[in-house]
Amino acid sequence: MTTDPKLQSNIVQLHAAKQPTIEFWYEFGSTYSYLSAMRIETQARDAGVSLSWRPFLLGPIFKKSGWDTSPFNLYPAKGRYMWRDMERQCARYGLPLTIPDPFPQSGLLAARIAQVGRTQPWIGDFTRAVFVAEFGSGEDISDEAFLAHLLLEAGAPAKEVLEASKSPDIKDALRASVGEAEEKGIFGAPSFVLQTGELFWGDDRLADALEMAAEIAKA
Amino acid sequence: MTTDPKLQSNIVQLHAAKQPTIEFWYEFGSTYSYLSAMRIETQARDAGVSLSWRPFLLGPIFKKSGWDTSPFNLYPAKGRYMWRDMERQCARYGLPLTIPDPFPQSGLLAARIAQVGRTQPWIGDFTRAVFVAEFGSGEDISDEAFLAHLLLEAGAPAKEVLEASKSPDIKDALRASVGEAEEKGIFGAPSFVLQTGELFWGDDRLADALEMAAEIAKA
Repeated sequence: MTTDPKLQSNIVQLHAAKQPTIEFWYEFGSTYSYLSAMRIETQARDAGVSLSWRPFLLGPIFKKSGWDTSPFNLYPAKGRYMWRDMERQCARYGLPLTIPDPFPQSGLLAARIAQVGRTQPWIGDFTRAVFVAEFGSGEDISDEAFLAHLLLEAGAPAKEVLEASKSPDIKDALRASVGEAEEKGIFGAPSFVLQTGELFWGDDRLADALEMAAEIAKA
Repeated sequence: MTTDPKLQSNIVQLHAAKQPTIEFWYEFGSTYSYLSAMRIETQARDAGVSLSWRPFLLGPIFKKSGWDTSPFNLYPAKGRYMWRDMERQCARYGLPLTIPDPFPQSGLLAARIAQVGRTQPWIGDFTRAVFVAEFGSGEDISDEAFLAHLLLEAGAPAKEVLEASKSPDIKDALRASVGEAEEKGIFGAPSFVLQTGELFWGDDRLADALEMAAEIAKA
């Protein structure tokens, strides 16, 4: 222990650098984000990796590729395959699956709420509740009253959170998150980013990302 | 044993139905096809699944989506990610990696050759040799003399095979394979198709596809 502020600060930094962390970039309209969202908190804990929830929006990124909707809608063969693949993956993970109508849904309000709460203790429960409602039961996740209900179930102060979610600060913060995602090379969801900047894309890379995060901390 | 031709035929059909089979649809320009091509013969043998090599072309399928080159070229962030992901996957599988220039290469002649030989004993060795040359060493796989050399190394009658590869029959057969791929719902490579029509896309689904193929045969 030291009382020297400079040394103290170095120790804190060193500790922070050695604490393995993973950023989980997810979009509420994304089917494969559902698969990762349901498992990442448990798996990160088991791997000794601390988890940073990073809700963002793919719409503005897709728009720059000239896409006005999900590529699963733009390319029908890819879309048909994705739903069958989701059936298989959900069966494997023991998750319910209902195709929401319409797909994709608007996840804007849910993403703003998650932006408000991304470092709050209720973020995991809220995120999972939204995804299960959407892809497990086919519910409409753009409905504000429904999201308020999910917030309360997750133990969040629903009224304050909803108010904050509509503030210019949060709208700006979510927009900045989209910009940050692009700077990190993200082009789809889910994506996982390590402290080194290493990027992993897709639910199929969740285990690899956690494994590398844990290794970095050991190095 | 029976000498009744009808019964005999039923027994043969039943036997064929119970023999697990996997179709491996691959495109020589596709990076992730390289990963599967290098491992599938051994893994299929280990799983007791018989392997059908199905070379095809993604170009005509991509063209219908409005793409005139690889999506990894059309979407730069996706392309940068793919090469990093390939580095990681090649390290995992102990495979060499060199980015060929240009990418993608023209795999048309190699695909026609593979179409000639797809049921021949040399198809596995030839296919792997082409992929290793292309993505392991960055060689030009459109060069006819080089392909002749790879054929000879794979124990194939190079002169006859090259002649056959330029025949109208083989050109038509490869074109028909592309049509068959589309009918089966294929939109990318590698893809794996089971007797039930079940489709798996991507090197990440190779193990799942083999597992399901083996289960179908047991059922």
